Amino acid sequence: MVLSYPLSERMRKLQPSPIREILKIASDPSFIPFAAGNPAPEAFPTQEIARITAEILAENPIGALQYAVTEGYNPLRETLKSFLMDSYNIGRETDELIILSGAQQAMDFTCKVLCDEEDVIIVEEPSFVGALNTFRSYRAHLIPVKLEEDGISLEKMEQALQEHAGRVRFIYLIPTFQNPSGLTMSLAKRKAVYELAKRYHVLIMEDNPYGELRFSGEHIPPIKSFDEDGLVIYVGTFSKVLAPGIRIGYACGPKEIIAKMVVAKQCNDTHTNIMSQILCYRFMTENDFGQHLEFLRGVYRKKSSLMIDNLDRLVGDKISYTRPNGGLFTWCELPPGVDMLAFVQALLESKLAVVPGNAFMVDPAQQVSTFRMNYSTPTDEQLVRGVEILADVVGRTL
Amino acid sequence: MVLSYPLSERMRKLQPSPIREILKIASDPSFIPFAAGNPAPEAFPTQEIARITAEILAENPIGALQYAVTEGYNPLRETLKSFLMDSYNIGRETDELIILSGAQQAMDFTCKVLCDEEDVIIVEEPSFVGALNTFRSYRAHLIPVKLEEDGISLEKMEQALQEHAGRVRFIYLIPTFQNPSGLTMSLAKRKAVYELAKRYHVLIMEDNPYGELRFSGEHIPPIKSFDEDGLVIYVGTFSKVLAPGIRIGYACGPKEIIAKMVVAKQCNDTHTNIMSQILCYRFMTENDFGQHLEFLRGVYRKKSSLMIDNLDRLVGDKISYTRPNGGLFTWCELPPGVDMLAFVQALLESKLAVVPGNAFMVDPAQQVSTFRMNYSTPTDEQLVRGVEILADVVGRTL
Repeated sequence: MVLSYPLSERMRKLQPSPIREILKIASDPSFIPFAAGNPAPEAFPTQEIARITAEILAENPIGALQYAVTEGYNPLRETLKSFLMDSYNIGRETDELIILSGAQQAMDFTCKVLCDEEDVIIVEEPSFVGALNTFRSYRAHLIPVKLEEDGISLEKMEQALQEHAGRVRFIYLIPTFQNPSGLTMSLAKRKAVYELAKRYHVLIMEDNPYGELRFSGEHIPPIKSFDEDGLVIYVGTFSKVLAPGIRIGYACGPKEIIAKMVVAKQCNDTHTNIMSQILCYRFMTENDFGQHLEFLRGVYRKKSSLMIDNLDRLVGDKISYTRPNGGLFTWCELPPGVDMLAFVQALLESKLAVVPGNAFMVDPAQQVSTFRMNYSTPTDEQLVRGVEILADVVGRTL
Repeated sequence: MVLSYPLSERMRKLQPSPIREILKIASDPSFIPFAAGNPAPEAFPTQEIARITAEILAENPIGALQYAVTEGYNPLRETLKSFLMDSYNIGRETDELIILSGAQQAMDFTCKVLCDEEDVIIVEEPSFVGALNTFRSYRAHLIPVKLEEDGISLEKMEQALQEHAGRVRFIYLIPTFQNPSGLTMSLAKRKAVYELAKRYHVLIMEDNPYGELRFSGEHIPPIKSFDEDGLVIYVGTFSKVLAPGIRIGYACGPKEIIAKMVVAKQCNDTHTNIMSQILCYRFMTENDFGQHLEFLRGVYRKKSSLMIDNLDRLVGDKISYTRPNGGLFTWCELPPGVDMLAFVQALLESKLAVVPGNAFMVDPAQQVSTFRMNYSTPTDEQLVRGVEILADVVGRTL
């Protein structure tokens, strides 16, 4: 018997992340990895992680190995609440915090809890493909709004809110060092976005994976810091400040929504790996966490400079690119008329892997002239060599 | 502004697991925990886990802390494929295996991949409440089929297949040491169930969290061992054979379905905690895994005997209960006419926590005379004392 498997409507057309497919092609170590989004290996406090892990397993192994509560390890939740309040003025009486198996789960559970099929989510364009795919997996209707130098277009966002009035469940934003663009929303725009959301009775999901990695410029408060009205679900992660392999993220939002996210999580993975939660708690409280973040900022300041300075020197007159003040990415734009996909293919043939910009669009079939480059994954040598390859291909094809 | 949050249809009515609510009430250590489903703490190989973890973090910390592939750590996948083939004759050319953050994710992703809203899933009744809730969270239509001494009723199952022809996406079964009943499906019935599924072109999800914990009786092959037709998604876990807090499970099923589960997982938690995956791999390959399983069987043989022998001695003439050959649970039935909820409440007032049987029903509002008791969580002293409390309440109320 050959069975034709009855796949659900929501999953039938959904494809794996194109980035992950590129990463598979480029996993050959002869490729220079400007396509990935991995934190720099030198940023991992491996000795401290080994020390704390050994202590956890020596002192209370059963507590680190037995079933745990879905909401998350309480000392970690309390520590994060204090951290968010002290660092960002985040957290009100009406808020609650849940520990997740990575920030990606915030996208999944928020969408699952808030959206019925065909409900609308407004997203920046370009935006994080992992979030877009999660929203697609629930058959949400994604409405892209153009990203400008200082953040999402207010005018286009209000148009979208009006056009889809009553169906918009939330606005998904990465205001700080956005993925893929590296751009940061201005304070004025953050306030305006919040006021618009309030006026239209729409929630905001503020994804802030890179917020702690500012290496230049002034701190800009998260949108959640203004949230007196219970409008914002704020999402954070340990992936960039400790290690991504441990899969620890968190969401802080209105109690009623977090309570439903707890139910969604109970139905998904019961709870997050408890040993890794205790590790995060002890790492934050036994070390000078602020000093660790300073160290990380130094790592990424150096790496981003290495990429941007070499871009300035070698291709600055031929292509344009953003100058991030933090995070992991720069967003490059080719001159008008250049075939971006052919250009990215030429880079790949020269062993430089980058991500074509259309991957970050709501409709990936649209033609764009952009691509994303990452400076955290490559070694310093690869950073220099990668930009040389880019310059070489620019010289040959533009 | 007070915002009324727009919760999705699927999550609005879904409640947290009633067991988790009972566990919260009974988390006071003065309660005797017959309600939980935790593996026995003495079953955790804590020293070996500490040794391996230290070695992983000394030898290749970056590999244990960096982002990893969604499908799972390849050496663990290969080791599990060999284990499943050698132990159970599970795995064909057309199958693939994915590592999950606990077996619960298999329920989530299988349902997400196969079921549109209102599609039908056939389940044993009683069944694992965690699975039922996950299916409910996708608005699947659950059709209960009575569980008999030797497994699901074939007659009723065929009736359900006929009545919902074309809408049944899969049959969810726990054939071995079922939760909550402790019952095991006979070999004859496993074959008949497989043939019925084949005849009606319906998939089977075979959940086998307790299969390695047989402490008496003869091994019965999993349904997946007959699967020449690509009909069965088999689900396993390390929660009962290593530790649940590390959240490692796996699913082995038709390639096409597993490929879509990979996409669903990418949208949920990107990948499973990589350090814990390496731990499982090394634990299985550096130790005599078979001998470890023998040790576990000894632990649970002793604990189940302690419960069943004391039940026989103290309440055997008043209430009935199943006699499991493995797993973690016995399923008790009160005489006709006794109010089960009042009885369970009386146990709770005497500081003995058990789970009322209606929690495991598709319609929890229905009246049943059953409740579940667990013998893996309590200490030996608590096992004896708990049955004494039960006998006392039986004596006072029946």
